[in-house]
Amino acid sequence: MYPQEPVIGILGGMGPAATADFYAKLVSHTRARRDQDHPRTVIWSDPTIPDRTQAILGLGEDPTPWMLRGVKHLEEAGATLIAVPCNTAHAFVPALQAKTSAPILHMIEETVELLSAQGIRSVGLLATTGTCQMGLYQASAAKGGVEVLVPDQDGQEKVMDAILGIKGGNTTPDISAALVEATTLLQAKGAEAVIAGCTEIPLALSQDMLQIPLIDPTGVLAVAALRQAGFPVADQGPERHVACP
Amino acid sequence: MYPQEPVIGILGGMGPAATADFYAKLVSHTRARRDQDHPRTVIWSDPTIPDRTQAILGLGEDPTPWMLRGVKHLEEAGATLIAVPCNTAHAFVPALQAKTSAPILHMIEETVELLSAQGIRSVGLLATTGTCQMGLYQASAAKGGVEVLVPDQDGQEKVMDAILGIKGGNTTPDISAALVEATTLLQAKGAEAVIAGCTEIPLALSQDMLQIPLIDPTGVLAVAALRQAGFPVADQGPERHVACP
Repeated sequence: MYPQEPVIGILGGMGPAATADFYAKLVSHTRARRDQDHPRTVIWSDPTIPDRTQAILGLGEDPTPWMLRGVKHLEEAGATLIAVPCNTAHAFVPALQAKTSAPILHMIEETVELLSAQGIRSVGLLATTGTCQMGLYQASAAKGGVEVLVPDQDGQEKVMDAILGIKGGNTTPDISAALVEATTLLQAKGAEAVIAGCTEIPLALSQDMLQIPLIDPTGVLAVAALRQAGFPVADQGPERHVACP
Repeated sequence: MYPQEPVIGILGGMGPAATADFYAKLVSHTRARRDQDHPRTVIWSDPTIPDRTQAILGLGEDPTPWMLRGVKHLEEAGATLIAVPCNTAHAFVPALQAKTSAPILHMIEETVELLSAQGIRSVGLLATTGTCQMGLYQASAAKGGVEVLVPDQDGQEKVMDAILGIKGGNTTPDISAALVEATTLLQAKGAEAVIAGCTEIPLALSQDMLQIPLIDPTGVLAVAALRQAGFPVADQGPERHVACP
């Protein structure tokens, strides 16, 4: 009764709202006319995983054992591939991959590959100061021949303030204006597109506010997971809602 | 390193969009200032579970073994309570509860309890024709002394058409108008509130369109799960987004 189709595993909780957003994107990006057309998915969402940025800066507990526990749960439930919808957590993906046979998709590399495929040679990055300093995007982009432009110190402080404001529930026009201004400055430096490199940013910044493409790594990861699992991807269009019949 | 705190299990995929919506509500209803304040959650989302309505009508495969498989995965991951964000699936909850020691919350009973606590004695039900005919809400409501009003046959056909329209991606003013009209007719019959008894309905019907309270069982279930797990519930307010730091 139980076909051995792919099972998409999601290592989530970093944070939980980003996980909910990622799963919603996975569902809406699936080309489906009924529930049964969608992939089986298992989600381990552990918001108690210690703060990744703090660990990288040597200021907090190593989250790797906690993330490995999640990977083990996903494996036990039959996950045949794993997605991690958190930018910063990708610093730990190599350590996780070494301990599991299920392939872990790499959101940042997938995003850079998309940029390369679109012929973008220079991209702006809006992200936490931690993500910028860790150079996660820069490392992948260098391999793909893509230049990553980040705001100067003053501009980065404004981006970080905006992100913290959004985390506090604030999505006022002032916040959006700060992110638009940061994008405009990156565009003036030569950015052909801008990456929403923190899951908060799309809550206050949308494509219609910008003159250059806004790249959403969470959506890129959703499409990559569907392709890897062999499921058809929906054409661009209104979100599909296939729910309880 | 791994505290034995509660783990909320979600038996999902019926449908997947409803599961994403439920998890988003669980997150936004949690009173939290950082990721680590949120409950650990495991989600088994299996959209390939056979259609529940078809099974109840004797026209399709029994979904119980598939749902039990999901319950087993949730137990293995340490779920200490289980939520099932699907109205129709509640016809199978007693059979599932008999096979697991983890308590399964009952969305429909929780909703009726809320109505009773609010002193509502007569409530309208907007749901699929299947949910209405199965009498799931009626059975719980009778125990709580609450009368359930459903549209007449012509009105129910319009509600069902609206639901099918929404499933097809249509949320035009016409669809909303049909649901408002159905609510108005139920209100004229004496309904003091109306239940969005199918997960599609809130996509085209919002509180500001109505003169009586709109009850969302998915949100009721999210609050019940948080309370049962011992987590503080956020006051009404803007949705909180605590994401990847």
